[in-house]
Amino acid sequence: MNDDKTLLHKAVDLAKDGIRLGNGPFGALIVRGDNIIAEASNQVVMSHDPTAHAEVLAIRKAAEILKTHDLSDCTIYTSCEPCPMCLGAIYWSGIKRVVYAAGKGDAEMAGFSDKLIYDEISLDPASRKISFIHIDEEEGREVFRLWNDFEDKIRY
Amino acid sequence: MNDDKTLLHKAVDLAKDGIRLGNGPFGALIVRGDNIIAEASNQVVMSHDPTAHAEVLAIRKAAEILKTHDLSDCTIYTSCEPCPMCLGAIYWSGIKRVVYAAGKGDAEMAGFSDKLIYDEISLDPASRKISFIHIDEEEGREVFRLWNDFEDKIRY
Repeated sequence: MNDDKTLLHKAVDLAKDGIRLGNGPFGALIVRGDNIIAEASNQVVMSHDPTAHAEVLAIRKAAEILKTHDLSDCTIYTSCEPCPMCLGAIYWSGIKRVVYAAGKGDAEMAGFSDKLIYDEISLDPASRKISFIHIDEEEGREVFRLWNDFEDKIRY
Repeated sequence: MNDDKTLLHKAVDLAKDGIRLGNGPFGALIVRGDNIIAEASNQVVMSHDPTAHAEVLAIRKAAEILKTHDLSDCTIYTSCEPCPMCLGAIYWSGIKRVVYAAGKGDAEMAGFSDKLIYDEISLDPASRKISFIHIDEEEGREVFRLWNDFEDKIRY
């Protein structure tokens, strides 16, 4: 039976695969109705891809399979509370339900930067540890004027 | 000459390509020293990928080309202040310098959810618009104990 506990257990098993395969200890799956649409383990190290977190990979796979960027009828199960990158990906995908096991504090204790990034994101850009340089604002706004005037745009 | 203004102008041109190609109005490039390593326009709509923001795509391409998830010696130029997903990707990549044109308020006025997601991320999971269900915390922590005990791990 695909209840929340069973599906979350699968995500935890995928996280263990992440460790075995030389990547980070994270796993996730995307479910729609009774169907598991996509599964993924973290692949950051072996694929040389800093965005290859389990949630991002599962979302990308599910969107490819369903041929839409809109996963609003799906649930994501993840072995650990999503980091800000993955949380952003969840919002952009329209997913409305997140079931998770470990918390971001557990990830921090294991040496991951999740909490640091959460703290940084809530700061004004000028106050962050990374240098944020805001120039040519007017040229940037011009792009949005072009967008607003573009009649064939598909919003997302 | 590849000064900040010239490179940011290229990112804005890539954003205009995004519109022309039926995607969102965003562009980004990754630069190391005097070399442009990777360029990208938003591809969310046409590639059916909610994570295909210009910054994420540019980071993925640069990491693939440089064969490392560590882009700490690179700068990212982006036509608009990064959304939380892209900002998270920037932190995970180690990029230390972000040069941008339009602000997140400009993106909001053009109909994008950047500001909403920034607001949601700073909330406690239980207070967000999306349903966050925290179960099996102990099973999730067990994965991190396995990780801590795994001697061959590569940290990132």
